[in-house]
Parts: sequence; C-alpha cells; structure tokens
Amino acid sequence: MTAPLDIIIMAAGKGTRMKSRHPKVLQKLAGRALLQHVLDTAAQLQARSAVVITGHGAEQVEAAIGQSSAGSTQLAFARQEPQLGTGHAVQQAVPLLADDGMAIVLSGDVPLTQADTLQGLLGAAGSDRVALLTVNMPDPTGYGRIVRNAEGTVQRIVEQKDANAQERAITEIYSGIMAVPVRRLKPWLARLNNNNAQGEYYLTDIVAMAVADGVAVEGHCIADVLQVAGINSPQQLAELERAHQMRQAQALMALGVRMADPARFDLRDDARGGKAQLLCGQDVEIDVGCIFGGQVRIGDGARIGAYCHISNAEIAADAVIHPFTHIDGEAAGAQVGEGALVGPFARLRPGAQLGKQVHIGNFVEVKNSRLADGAKANHLAYLGDAELGERVNYGAGSITANYDGANKHRTVIEADVHVGSNCVLVAPVTIGAGGTVGGGSTITKSTPPGALSVARGKQVSIANWDRPQKKS
Amino acid sequence: MTAPLDIIIMAAGKGTRMKSRHPKVLQKLAGRALLQHVLDTAAQLQARSAVVITGHGAEQVEAAIGQSSAGSTQLAFARQEPQLGTGHAVQQAVPLLADDGMAIVLSGDVPLTQADTLQGLLGAAGSDRVALLTVNMPDPTGYGRIVRNAEGTVQRIVEQKDANAQERAITEIYSGIMAVPVRRLKPWLARLNNNNAQGEYYLTDIVAMAVADGVAVEGHCIADVLQVAGINSPQQLAELERAHQMRQAQALMALGVRMADPARFDLRDDARGGKAQLLCGQDVEIDVGCIFGGQVRIGDGARIGAYCHISNAEIAADAVIHPFTHIDGEAAGAQVGEGALVGPFARLRPGAQLGKQVHIGNFVEVKNSRLADGAKANHLAYLGDAELGERVNYGAGSITANYDGANKHRTVIEADVHVGSNCVLVAPVTIGAGGTVGGGSTITKSTPPGALSVARGKQVSIANWDRPQKKS
Amino acid sequence: MTAPLDIIIMAAGKGTRMKSRHPKVLQKLAGRALLQHVLDTAAQLQARSAVVITGHGAEQVEAAIGQSSAGSTQLAFARQEPQLGTGHAVQQAVPLLADDGMAIVLSGDVPLTQADTLQGLLGAAGSDRVALLTVNMPDPTGYGRIVRNAEGTVQRIVEQKDANAQERAITEIYSGIMAVPVRRLKPWLARLNNNNAQGEYYLTDIVAMAVADGVAVEGHCIADVLQVAGINSPQQLAELERAHQMRQAQALMALGVRMADPARFDLRDDARGGKAQLLCGQDVEIDVGCIFGGQVRIGDGARIGAYCHISNAEIAADAVIHPFTHIDGEAAGAQVGEGALVGPFARLRPGAQLGKQVHIGNFVEVKNSRLADGAKANHLAYLGDAELGERVNYGAGSITANYDGANKHRTVIEADVHVGSNCVLVAPVTIGAGGTVGGGSTITKSTPPGALSVARGKQVSIANWDRPQKKS
Repeated sequence: MTAPLDIIIMAAGKGTRMKSRHPKVLQKLAGRALLQHVLDTAAQLQARSAVVITGHGAEQVEAAIGQSSAGSTQLAFARQEPQLGTGHAVQQAVPLLADDGMAIVLSGDVPLTQADTLQGLLGAAGSDRVALLTVNMPDPTGYGRIVRNAEGTVQRIVEQKDANAQERAITEIYSGIMAVPVRRLKPWLARLNNNNAQGEYYLTDIVAMAVADGVAVEGHCIADVLQVAGINSPQQLAELERAHQMRQAQALMALGVRMADPARFDLRDDARGGKAQLLCGQDVEIDVGCIFGGQVRIGDGARIGAYCHISNAEIAADAVIHPFTHIDGEAAGAQVGEGALVGPFARLRPGAQLGKQVHIGNFVEVKNSRLADGAKANHLAYLGDAELGERVNYGAGSITANYDGANKHRTVIEADVHVGSNCVLVAPVTIGAGGTVGGGSTITKSTPPGALSVARGKQVSIANWDRPQKKS
Repeated sequence: MTAPLDIIIMAAGKGTRMKSRHPKVLQKLAGRALLQHVLDTAAQLQARSAVVITGHGAEQVEAAIGQSSAGSTQLAFARQEPQLGTGHAVQQAVPLLADDGMAIVLSGDVPLTQADTLQGLLGAAGSDRVALLTVNMPDPTGYGRIVRNAEGTVQRIVEQKDANAQERAITEIYSGIMAVPVRRLKPWLARLNNNNAQGEYYLTDIVAMAVADGVAVEGHCIADVLQVAGINSPQQLAELERAHQMRQAQALMALGVRMADPARFDLRDDARGGKAQLLCGQDVEIDVGCIFGGQVRIGDGARIGAYCHISNAEIAADAVIHPFTHIDGEAAGAQVGEGALVGPFARLRPGAQLGKQVHIGNFVEVKNSRLADGAKANHLAYLGDAELGERVNYGAGSITANYDGANKHRTVIEADVHVGSNCVLVAPVTIGAGGTVGGGSTITKSTPPGALSVARGKQVSIANWDRPQKKS
Repeated sequence: MTAPLDIIIMAAGKGTRMKSRHPKVLQKLAGRALLQHVLDTAAQLQARSAVVITGHGAEQVEAAIGQSSAGSTQLAFARQEPQLGTGHAVQQAVPLLADDGMAIVLSGDVPLTQADTLQGLLGAAGSDRVALLTVNMPDPTGYGRIVRNAEGTVQRIVEQKDANAQERAITEIYSGIMAVPVRRLKPWLARLNNNNAQGEYYLTDIVAMAVADGVAVEGHCIADVLQVAGINSPQQLAELERAHQMRQAQALMALGVRMADPARFDLRDDARGGKAQLLCGQDVEIDVGCIFGGQVRIGDGARIGAYCHISNAEIAADAVIHPFTHIDGEAAGAQVGEGALVGPFARLRPGAQLGKQVHIGNFVEVKNSRLADGAKANHLAYLGDAELGERVNYGAGSITANYDGANKHRTVIEADVHVGSNCVLVAPVTIGAGGTVGGGSTITKSTPPGALSVARGKQVSIANWDRPQKKS
C-alpha cells in the first residue's frame, strides 16, 4: 500500500533580484503565480495535503493562494520567521504532517516540474528509502552536488559554499526536490545543525543522516533541466516563460495544430485568473504573434490571423479571424459562429455571440450582443446590448446608444433590416423586420416592419460660401 | 546533347502525423502547397514532363494541382494503390515516361530543394550514370545510408531498418532525390523485390543493380540540409517555414533592404494563391513583424512600420506606412502614391488608389476609391466607391453610403472640397469643387461648386433636464 | 596627469554592400546613426575633441552630424580623398590634433563599443605606450592578426592579405581600435608606405614602428566581440540591431522590469532623433512585441499590453495600456494618468493628457486634449483640441470638429457632461457642466449647464417601402 502524499512547498524567499513589491512566488509565468504552478502539480498527484512555508510577504502569499487554488488537496500554511535555511523551513512544516505520509519537498519558485516526473521520484522512494531528484548540469556552479561513493551510492549532498575542489567538479546536482517518508524526516530534522559556511540549517544534511541510519538514498536523475529550474530574477522568469510557451506550442503542433511560428505564440491564464486552455479541432491554423488567454476553443478548419489576442472564446469550425482581432469574452464568454469572418481590427467583448456566416469588419466593436446567422457589421460600428436578426446589414459608423448615462437598454433589429450609415439607434428601440433606416438618422422610437425610417435635417446649400481663412 | 528532363514526384503519402483531413503534400509552406513548391522547381528546370504519383487523398491532390500549376512542363498523375514502397511508386510512373529522358525523382514533401542544386545533380548524371543527391547528417538515424567501397565509389543504399551497426555509423545519407536515365530505370524497376525488413519495394535497391550492371553511381553531396528536409509533422512544417522565411529575409537584405528583425518577417502566397514576390527599391526599411502576401512592390526610400500586413500592393517611393496598417489589394490591387502617409490602424482594400502625398489616418478604411494628390482622410472614416479630387479634406467620422441594400453607387468629391465630421454622403452624389459640407450633414443630393451645404436639425436646449437615474 | 583625449573616427567608407544612397556611417541602429553611437561614446569619455574622417558622402555626413551631436567634445571633420588606406585616413586627421593628447582611433561603423571598454584601453596606454583593443575570434578570417613574440609581447599587426599560413592561424585579432599618444603617432604616420598586398597605407604598420622605437605595445583583449563588430551589410546591421535590443532588454530586466519576451522588445530613438530612454518604476510589466521610442517613463505597477508602440510619453503608476495601442507624444509629449485604462486599438497623439482613472477605449484618437480625472471616451471617437472635465462621458462615434478648413478651435466639455453617440461638437463650443447632448446631434452653439441639448431631424417612417432591387 502506498503512503498518503503530503507536499511541502518552500515559499518563504524574498527574491531580492526580482526588485518587486510582491514576493517571488507570486510572480507570474504564463499569467499564473509560480506557487500556483507548483500547487497545480501537487493537485495532479492527488496529494493529501500541501503545506506552504511562507516568510517574506507571507500575508500576500496567504491571501493570494487559497484553498480553492489547491483542489482536493488540503492546503495549510506555516510561517518561517526568521529564515535560517532550508532545513529550518521544513522544520516549520512538519508539525502539520501526519507520520504515515510520504513527503515531497518542492520549491515555490520552480514552476515547470511535471507530475509524471514526481511520480517517478515517488517510485524511487519508499518507507525506508529517500529519493532525490537530480540533474546533470554542464556548469553546476552554485548548486548542491550529489556525492556518490565508488559503487555509485549517494552519500550526501554538499552545498557549493562547503564543497572542496573535487566535489565542485561533480556535475550531478540536487534539484531541491526530494521525497522522504515523514516518519523518518522528523527525527532527522531535529538533529540538524548550522555548522557550515552559511551558518544555516540545510535540509540537504538529512541525506548523510539517512546514509548513517542505513536508509537508502536514491538519486533519481532526469534529463530535462527546465523541470527543476528556479526563478530568481526577471531574466530567469523570461527564459522559463519562453521555454514554457514553446512547450505549449510544441504540444499543440503534436496534436495537429499548424503554427506559422511557434516562437511567437503565447497561451496564458486570463487577467481574471482563468486557467489557460486552448482546445483545437482538426486543421486549425494559427498565424504569427497570436496570444490566447483563459479558455479558448477553436473548431475544425478555423484560421486565426496574425497578432490576434483571443481569450475566453469559442471559435466555431471554418471561421476566419483576420489579423489584429481582439476577443475577450471574460466571464460571459464570446462566440464566433461557423464560417463567420471577423476582423481585421475588430473587437469582440463579453457576451458577443455571432451566428453562422456573420461578418464583423474593421473598427467594429461588439459587446453583449447576439447576431443571428448572416448578419453583417462591416465597418466602424458599435453594437452594445443589441439583438440582430438574420441577414441584418448594419451600416458603417452606426451606433447603438445603449447607455442613457445611467442605465443600459437593449436595441432589437429584426431580420433583414438594413441600417444605413452613421445612424444612432437610441435604446430601448426596435427596428421592425425588413425595415430600412436611412443613413444619418437618429432613431428614438421603434419602427414598423417593412418601413423606411428617416430622421434627418433638410439639405440646404449656401452658394459661393467663403470658407474661413487661415489666421496668421 | 542533353536528354529531355522528366520529373517523378512522390506524393502518395498520407502524413499521419499531420493529423489533417488534407493529404500531406497539400499542406502549405509560405502559403503554397508543398507539392507546388516542388513543381515550381521542376518548372525552373524546364522539365519536359512531371508525373505526380498520388495515393492518399489522390482526388484532392489532383484537383488542387492542375496543369496551370506546372507552367510549360507537361503534368500527369499516376495513382499508387496500394502503397508498396518507393520502388513500387516509381513503377506506377514509368509507363508514362519516354525512354529517351533523364528522370529526376523528387518528393512532394521536400519543398526547399533549389533548381541549381538539381542542375548540379543532372551534371553528375548521364546516359550511363546514376546520380544520388546526398548530405552528411550528424545524426543519420532513420535515413538510408550511402555505402561506398574503399575507393569511395558508391555501392548501394541501405535503409535504416536493414542496416548493420557499421552501416548505421555512416553519416552520408540518401536524400530521396536521384537522377537516373529512364532507359536504365525501367528494367531495374522490373527486377525489384520486397525481401527486406519492411516488406516493401525500395527504389534505392536500383543502386546496387546499377553497380552490378557496371553503371556508374555518383553521390552528389551538398552541404545544405534544408534543401532535402522532408515534412512529416506540424513541427517540421513550422521549422521549414521559419528557415524559408529567414532565407527570404536574408535574400532581401543582400539586395539592400533594411530589416529591423529578419526573424520576424513573413512573405507568402496570398489567400487566393497569388505567388509571393516582394520587390523593393533602394533604401527600403521594413520594421519588425511585417507580413507580405502575393505581389508587393515598394519604391525607393519607402518605410514600412511595425506589424503591417501588406498584400498585392504598390507602395511608391518615400511613402510611409505607419504601424498596424492592413493593405490587401487582392485581384484589383492597391496603390499608395509617392510620399503618402498611411496609418497607423488604416486599412486599404481592393481598388484603393492613393495619389502623391495623400494622408490616410487612423481607423480609416478605403475600398475601390481613388484619392488624387494631396487628399486627406485622417480619422475614423469610410471611403468606398469614391473619387476624391486633389486636396480634398474628408472629415473625421464621415462615411460614403455606397450601398443602398442592393447596389453599389459612386460618390464624387471634387477638388478642394472640405467634408466636415460625421457626414454621410449618400451615393450616387457629387460634391462640387471647392464646396464645404457642414459637420453632421447627410447629403443625398449633389451640391454646387463653392457652396456650403448643410443638412442638420435645429439645435434646442431643454434647461435643467433631469438625466435618467441609475436603476438599482 | 592624464593627457587630454582626442578621438579619431574613421567614417570615409562607402559601404557598397549596404546598397544605399546614404553613406554607411549614417545607417541607423536603434534609430540612431552608427556614427552618432560612436560620438555618444566619445562624449561619455569627455574627449577634448573628435575628428571625423569623411570621404564617401562627406557632405551628407557633415550635414547630419553637427557640433550639437558631440556634446562638450569639440567636433571637426577631415576629408580623405582619395581613400588610400587606414593610415592615410588618419594622416588627414592629425594636423587637427595637438601634440599633448592621447588619441583613440575608432570606426564610425562600429557602434556598440562601450565607454568603460575604452577607459580600460586608455588605462593600458600611456605617453610611451600604445594600446590595441583586441579580441579572440574562433574564425579570424579577414581580420588583422596580433603577432606576439615568444614572451607574449606584441610585435606587429599583419593584415589578412599579407599574412602567411602561420600568422593566419592566430585567433587574436585587432579590433580597429587603438590608443596612441599623438606626439608618437605623427612621425610614425609620416613614415608609412604602401608596399603591401593591397597597395594601401596601413595604420596598423605603426605597431611595428613602435616596437622598433622601443615603445611598448599592449594588446588589451576583451571577451565581448559585439563591442568591436563592424557593419558592412544590411545583414550585419540587423544582427547588431538584435544584439543591441537584447542587451537593452536584459538591462531593463536587471532593474526589475518584467518582459514576456525579451527577444520581442525594441527601444529606439524616435523619428525626430530624440534619444531612446525608457525609465521604469517598480513592477512594470511589458508584454510581447512592444516598441518604445524617444523618452518614455512608466510608473510603478503599470502594465503595457502586447504590440504597443509608445514614444515620448509618461505612463503613470498602475495605468493599463491594452494591446495594439499607439502613443506618440512627439515634441509635446503625452501623459496617461494613474490607473487610467487605454486601448485596445487606441491612439494618443501629441498633447494628449489623460488624468487619473481616465478610460480611452477602442478606435479612439486623442490629440492635444486634456481629459480630467475619471473622464471616459470608450468607443470610436475623436477628441482633438478639447478639454474634458471630470467624469465626462464622451459617446461612441462622437467627434470634435476642431478644424474649420483653415483654423483649429477648441472644444470645452465641462464636468459631468454626457455626450451621446455620433455627435459632432463644432468648435469653438462649450458644453456646460452637467449637461447632456442627445445622440446624433450636431452642436454649433454653446449649451447651458444642466441642459439637455439636441439637434436632430424629426423621425418619419414610410410604410411598406420597397428597397432598391439588385441590378443584374
């Protein structure tokens, strides 16, 4: 029987080099806090509990990361004040852990560790076996080295500052991630001391204790350095961001998505924290420079033009989103119907619902409006809180005046209506089916079906008019 | 006398890893089907004929690639069903080939082979000489190896699955491209068998036959691996796309074009299949992230701002295209005159013809309209089916209402007219030279030259008006 | 006591491979002429004088680079015609130099040399010591090699074309940059001859002369090859542009700026030559693909969305600039207030001054206008030469008609006014505080505070109207 899994997450560091008002573990990668990435991985492992060890900015961290961030894993916090080393950090956490568990120690600033890697680590650990996640680094400077004996058995971890020349030549380094049975961990932690170059309590010292106690220590070495890469500066954050984005792009391409340039692709949590997910049908094409946020679905054969910014939206099959289109459905979502054409320079906001073959053209904004199949708004227009019937043609420059300065009202434009250019439809108002609104009209009252409705001034011309002269 | 050239193109594969509804050879690189790239190269060689061997998706391939795609080269198709190997594929093609020709075997999924490379291969071949295009690969895994004897003479090609350890260590690999005299090819094909690891008829087995028959086999080795790179997955497609785009950028820079970032440059066939070609004068500057499609000409000293998307257009000398400008002339073309300023956030559509020093500003759309020298439309406007005289000033928010719901009509604005803001010009209509249209007017009747024309309601104010209150 | 510093800048070359009408040293890197980069470095060293040796395009160079480009350094030009080698070039400059100085010879096409590198070089030079800036190049082909004796003492520089096989194997190369006391330089220059492969007078021959005269020659070797990289082609220009941009991005990240992709960041001089400078507060986030020009300040916690183009602007703390926003304040500047929201698809032009919490939405242009705290213009609008009071709500599609065809006039919209949709405010005009303008109104006369003002036609409907039929 496998022991229940408990996760210990080191999240007390300040991250001085970030030069930020916010604690390091709340810095964002792909729109998501670093610590949240780690918790997500813990949740995938169906951990029983996760103890986050906070310190610098503890209140901020505890406020930002609530139980809801941890799924079914029971979340707890332990404060480490002052910060006397990694061993000291874990000492703060263990009072919260039951003796029957297997603990994995993770770092809140190491966001890209994958769940199956940790499963592998767990496989190497056991009730009398500690497992260390290790990697080989061509340049191991700064990392704790894995010291093995002649038989290759792990003996201890030596920190950079305490290593001799021979030890510094070792390229297998400790990732900061280990799996250790709680029953064993507790007494070892109690025996830590700070007789070392930094005067700190090193968690890594428990390795030598394990060896001394006859407990096996496995070095579980992986090839993928990115999974154990930590973030201490904006430069490292940017490097991992790009690596993560490239991996997301590769994963989508492996599913058949065609990308014009995987190095110019971004998929992130949205601004409200909605988790990034891009689901694509068959033969989806994504042009250069697109950014996706939150939940986006794209149907078979749909094409996304260059530099589109699409969040929280469903794009149906065979729709074409032209370049420079901005779609963010936020909580309400946004829908683009089958075969619809949107953009360039279009913006769809929350509650935009476009039917099949709808056309939304340049400099058009749509918010909280439903356009039935075949409706068109091709040029410089605003549709807010509106309902357009099938085949409506909504003219260039026309505006639904949905806001009276205090409240929002709806505009209804029934099927087959033709709204001319530069009209204002003052809501609440209904344009009856098949009607026509003459260009330049401000419509304040509902109009009957089939009628031509006009509201404009009489045209007069003053002959030989002298235009104002340029003043010097 | 050189033998006539006949091209055999392998195009029967499915490309399972593309996960597409379309056959692999119709996938697009730089907007052009992979197979079309190969046919273009064949056309450059002035091949007598090209036989495309189809299989998976044969109907789709044959429908997409017609005689017009092949120029003066005579195009034919041969079906390979079922698919029993590369030798079996070529067996389907040879009945269509005359005995007097030199055949080059190409792959429909290898798009970047250059014509001069194939000329070099032809130079190495002869009426009694087979020539193989080879490259050295640091990691040759998966490729057929070129087995040479102690004197360096090619003996045979051994496929990965049939190679022994010593052969697998060979890094010179067969590219899949060979030149072979048809008279020789036919009997060799007839002798192929499928006694090998994959149970297939290998075309590469003819190499050993040639050697046995005393026919010389030349290995024509090139350094440029990209020219023989095949595409089997969206990842490989994206890699070759970027390599191809970088080469296009390098070629333009070698001609003097200045690019802010050659890694963020794209030039492609347009959406209608118009072949990509960008012709630049002297001292042309192209900023980051621009995308060009179809035929584009840019005159001396013109500058293209960041993130412009320009297709089928002529940009005259010294014009400045500001960032985020979208120009697509499609079949009709679009012209930007000398010294004109366009954008940011402008859109020129088919038939936009801008004279010298014309200014088109932000959020302005121009379609099928001619603007004479010095005309300006600087802010939020639509010009469709219009003719603007010299020095016309077209006001912010003004619209040509060119569509009556059924037909399109033209608007004529004669020289030196000043159209105010938020006007509607209901076509057909003419604004006489030197006239002025007052802001907010809807003009439905033509106006005389020199006149001030106005069509608006009388302004009234209701004092102490109570604005609607927010409903709770 | 240190000798005064005089800079000699080689700037006579044509740069044939640039294929430009302009001399090479006027080509731009990050928006700044290559020669200007070199002069900027000279100015940082507080050089006494700088002599620019011109030749090809001398008039253009001398016109473009004036005394104001050189700060407190006294600028002079010397013409080299014809061009007989680097030694001949410097011969033209020395008559302008006093004997008491230390000369540094720089190249006008080597833009990225840093002042502290030259300080290091000066430290290696002295009144009887020549110092050569050198680097190790894995492939030194084409460069002059540093020939040292068995003790490691520099003996001479040998040019590529004059080097024997042993010398060509040397990887330490001369950068083209040296420091040499003027008193020594003059007689050596007088003794140069052109008995060499190219028949030119080589400046590098003075090294052997110095050795012969018992003057020490130091090779000051640096690791950073980019600092000595010259530009001879658009390809090299693009490579250095990217390297320079990446260094700017790294420097900003080291200060705490968070960048989604440092490879997609550009900071340049503006179009008017204003020097590039980006000053960021704490916790500033810059999304992918942004371009900055001239002087830009960004306050604490402000966020810049993807693909923004921002020049000559101040963005206050906690402002959010949404994607695709174009801001260029030019000489007048542009301000975005604390917590303001701008974009997407917004454009701020010179003199745009946005107060706190101002909202500027999509397809809105603001020029020479002041918006007080809390004012909003969210949709398709133009504000030019306008003054908006606090909390003004400026409706979709509304336009300030600031230009009567000859002169510009101001529009004043007092606090708490609500302007409806598609209005035209014909300046000069004032909308009184708390007033409302009905949608579709053209306002030509000022309106009283608190009033509802309307100017529109009466709405009429023609029943059962037959819309025009499509003509075949």
